[in-house]
Amino acid sequence: MNVSPLQEARYEYTPKLPGMLRNGISEICVNEGEATQSVADQDRIRELFPNTYGKKEITFSKGANTSEAKKQVVGVILSGGQAPGGHNVVSGLYDALKATNSENVLYGFKGGPSGLLEDDYLIFDDEYIDQFRNTGGFDIIGSGRTKLETEEQFEVATEVCRKHGITAIVIIGGDDSNTNAAVLAEYMAAKNTGVQVIGCPKTIDGDLKNDDIEASFGFDTATKTYSELIGNIERDCNSAKKYWHFIKVMGRSASHVALECALETQPNVCLISEEVAEKKMSLSQIADQIADSVVKRAENGLNYGVVIIPEGVVEFVPEFSALISEINEMLAGSKADAFNALPDWDAKYAFISKGLSGESMKVFEILPQPIQQQLFLDRDPHGNVQVSLIESEKLFSALVGARLEERRAAGTYRGKYSPLHHFFGYEGRCAFPSNFDADYCYSLGYNAFMLIQYGYTGYLSKVSNLSRPADEWVAGGMPITKMMNMERRHGEDKPVIRKALVELDGAPFKYFAAHRGEWAEKTCYTFPGAIQYFGPSSVCDITTRTLALEKGM
Amino acid sequence: MNVSPLQEARYEYTPKLPGMLRNGISEICVNEGEATQSVADQDRIRELFPNTYGKKEITFSKGANTSEAKKQVVGVILSGGQAPGGHNVVSGLYDALKATNSENVLYGFKGGPSGLLEDDYLIFDDEYIDQFRNTGGFDIIGSGRTKLETEEQFEVATEVCRKHGITAIVIIGGDDSNTNAAVLAEYMAAKNTGVQVIGCPKTIDGDLKNDDIEASFGFDTATKTYSELIGNIERDCNSAKKYWHFIKVMGRSASHVALECALETQPNVCLISEEVAEKKMSLSQIADQIADSVVKRAENGLNYGVVIIPEGVVEFVPEFSALISEINEMLAGSKADAFNALPDWDAKYAFISKGLSGESMKVFEILPQPIQQQLFLDRDPHGNVQVSLIESEKLFSALVGARLEERRAAGTYRGKYSPLHHFFGYEGRCAFPSNFDADYCYSLGYNAFMLIQYGYTGYLSKVSNLSRPADEWVAGGMPITKMMNMERRHGEDKPVIRKALVELDGAPFKYFAAHRGEWAEKTCYTFPGAIQYFGPSSVCDITTRTLALEKGM
Repeated sequence: MNVSPLQEARYEYTPKLPGMLRNGISEICVNEGEATQSVADQDRIRELFPNTYGKKEITFSKGANTSEAKKQVVGVILSGGQAPGGHNVVSGLYDALKATNSENVLYGFKGGPSGLLEDDYLIFDDEYIDQFRNTGGFDIIGSGRTKLETEEQFEVATEVCRKHGITAIVIIGGDDSNTNAAVLAEYMAAKNTGVQVIGCPKTIDGDLKNDDIEASFGFDTATKTYSELIGNIERDCNSAKKYWHFIKVMGRSASHVALECALETQPNVCLISEEVAEKKMSLSQIADQIADSVVKRAENGLNYGVVIIPEGVVEFVPEFSALISEINEMLAGSKADAFNALPDWDAKYAFISKGLSGESMKVFEILPQPIQQQLFLDRDPHGNVQVSLIESEKLFSALVGARLEERRAAGTYRGKYSPLHHFFGYEGRCAFPSNFDADYCYSLGYNAFMLIQYGYTGYLSKVSNLSRPADEWVAGGMPITKMMNMERRHGEDKPVIRKALVELDGAPFKYFAAHRGEWAEKTCYTFPGAIQYFGPSSVCDITTRTLALEKGM
Repeated sequence: MNVSPLQEARYEYTPKLPGMLRNGISEICVNEGEATQSVADQDRIRELFPNTYGKKEITFSKGANTSEAKKQVVGVILSGGQAPGGHNVVSGLYDALKATNSENVLYGFKGGPSGLLEDDYLIFDDEYIDQFRNTGGFDIIGSGRTKLETEEQFEVATEVCRKHGITAIVIIGGDDSNTNAAVLAEYMAAKNTGVQVIGCPKTIDGDLKNDDIEASFGFDTATKTYSELIGNIERDCNSAKKYWHFIKVMGRSASHVALECALETQPNVCLISEEVAEKKMSLSQIADQIADSVVKRAENGLNYGVVIIPEGVVEFVPEFSALISEINEMLAGSKADAFNALPDWDAKYAFISKGLSGESMKVFEILPQPIQQQLFLDRDPHGNVQVSLIESEKLFSALVGARLEERRAAGTYRGKYSPLHHFFGYEGRCAFPSNFDADYCYSLGYNAFMLIQYGYTGYLSKVSNLSRPADEWVAGGMPITKMMNMERRHGEDKPVIRKALVELDGAPFKYFAAHRGEWAEKTCYTFPGAIQYFGPSSVCDITTRTLALEKGM
């Protein structure tokens, strides 16, 4: 067997373009809007981007194509973690490029931005690209995490572009990669290299979102995949009636994924990191919140439930962050030697209790022993605690267990509590893109080429009105500098696209907050099931609840 | 939101019946075949089942219904772990029952067999049952693990049946539950209670399979759900190119699930417990087999891969089973007190190394410490090691890591090895049933009622020719005693349905064995994607590769 029946069938799928891109290349004209300003720190950003700042927003519409008829040689790069739909960005880009001029060429740089620096590439043709249409993964050219940000890298990139006669680079990536795309665009313009740079908004985390980007691609498919599994587990839980499932979902710094999954599946509890930070919640407070649901449900004979935990939540708990900082400080450099020389955990524990502040020691004491040991024993090459390795689903289930035993002793809880643990992450990053992501990504790529063809640089491929059917989508571009502000990163002020965290006064969170009391006590589970690619539009073509709520639908 | 869009759409699905059941109740006639014999131990089984042994196989066909026109009151029970499609067995049973006579009544006993003993039930009506059509889960009446096997239980069951005027019981369960159904049928016949008993073959494990049962329901949907996730991870793995994923899949005693997933996704390695037992493989040999794949792939620059591990594999490793027996013996009863009194792990380890035989100590020594500790510290109420809790995916990734370090030291391996771990089980047990399982289960239930209506007892609802389209399926019934033999269970000889393990000379394993060498070295991943309920028949209606291979397709 070479390809699965579904893959075979998905090859036949024709992604839907926004209405104004459906009339053929010769019928796409451009409309320029107002000149733009960055969302903050305008003077500073203008100064840093003298050649690309303040450009106009543009939208495409049906009309005679007035672009210059020159041969285009475009390079495309996939940057960072996989997100469903990446292959469709590439195929949309390729199709527009070839439809414009069959002599145009598309290079794919392999293994992420490093492929551009190392001149490691392939040249796309129909046969190759047809194997990847409407499929998941980034294996079409691979991806990587090299950051394109230094002057030296830009010089190398320029040289590679010159060698191949490349006229434009398309960077498909998250907030950092698009920030770097803007910096590269500015460099290319300043040096008069003749190379344009266009970005495309990717990330399953959903944190690349602002007034101009309604959704980053991949978020729809990834959250639908996790929601399928969470819903299945809810149904199992409601049938077996004997386990509390603690389910961690991917998404390190923002809780959009957890929140969307909660809106799709209505679990008993879902933690939202942004709320934890805003309310400065302690581990004990979080454990109590979950324990409250366990106790209330037990009173009604329901000794089971589902808790969703965003991957990065512990980093948002102030007292836990403080503990981590103290540990990093305590074992920095050669200070670790004395610790490492201690013979056993008891000796190490004594060392720790002497070294930590009273407040941090209180936090440390309530952690289950495997987590305590992990904090001290599994450190990265710089000696820092590897927060991303902390099994927070096990941490919280243990803390809740301890709370419940206290309540049992106090006579306020008589239930049974058997926790199970899950982590969903890798399962969702390379799923076959949903119809939404297949359409959206193909449109982003197609649109990216139209921006190139019309001579724009430093723009993000923008497709909006996404909560409506695809023929009503709006295609265009926005200067990346418009989305930027200055932020402190690694001790330096840098121009960056702001990471979008869950807004506690936004419609998605407010909907969740209005319903979670009922969900915590009763059983309100919903079961989304597997992503459907064929069948009723209500099942196959609807995007996220997050976007629907944001758009007031 | 009350129900998801998919659930709404699935309510509209009309399950497909076998052709001979499609003409309405009045056009279903019965054909009796030959008298049957049990597969082994005929004399002994005949003696144990004097009233139900040796009955004829029956099939249904189109023709005038000649069954007796009496009012039927049927009770249905879900037994054991959840499997997708259980709700459709109930709805098929209900529809046939009501279509035959609207006065007929269907009782659902709640929470498994204990519901019958405790007279805890509901009575189905259209409104209630319509909420569950084509959905996953067993929440329609719940399930449970109480075994119906003692004379006392049978007396209580008889009393409950008499009270409600129940004429038949349908038991939906695995091999043990169907064995018990046969024993209950014999009891009911011997006592002239007028209560018939019919079984339906359920289990995602796939180990209830024989000449008469081509597939147990739920296996199709569960393996498709796991294969979706494994395929997604393979695609991620092939894109990120940096992790070895160790994926454990549910299925305690047989490896059908792992094998089917391997056939669907073509991973680098898949362990098959039955082969491990047959070849008396040691942990080291298994680790070496996986390490061979890691090394070969590393030589080609592929420092990533996917390994599928059946949940119960360690119990099939002879030296590991021997170790477990010794530990259970060493800590039986009060002997545990001396061990428990030891102050720390070092002291405990010394105690262990004195107590174990030399051979078992060698096995113990190579285990990673968390597994060593788990074997001694997490024991069940009887003091036995809880083998099902052993994280075998972590065990094998650690053993492989140790092997690789040896090879690195010997200069025969220069790769990178970063393992990640997953366990897929609960995700698949309550998925929306695939079209296959929705159709098969509805047919099993419909057919079960026809067996009741025609007066049969001690029969299993049998639907066969399943690798063909549903209209070619064959509906009928087989005496459960025909599938039985005598086996030693808990120190007693008992009549049981034989558990079907993976046959090493069967077509599915042989196909796997013929291809695994290539899969181990190259990247031959296939990506099944999510279960599709609508769309091309090649995607939506095909059942497992296991069945196709067994049927020579």
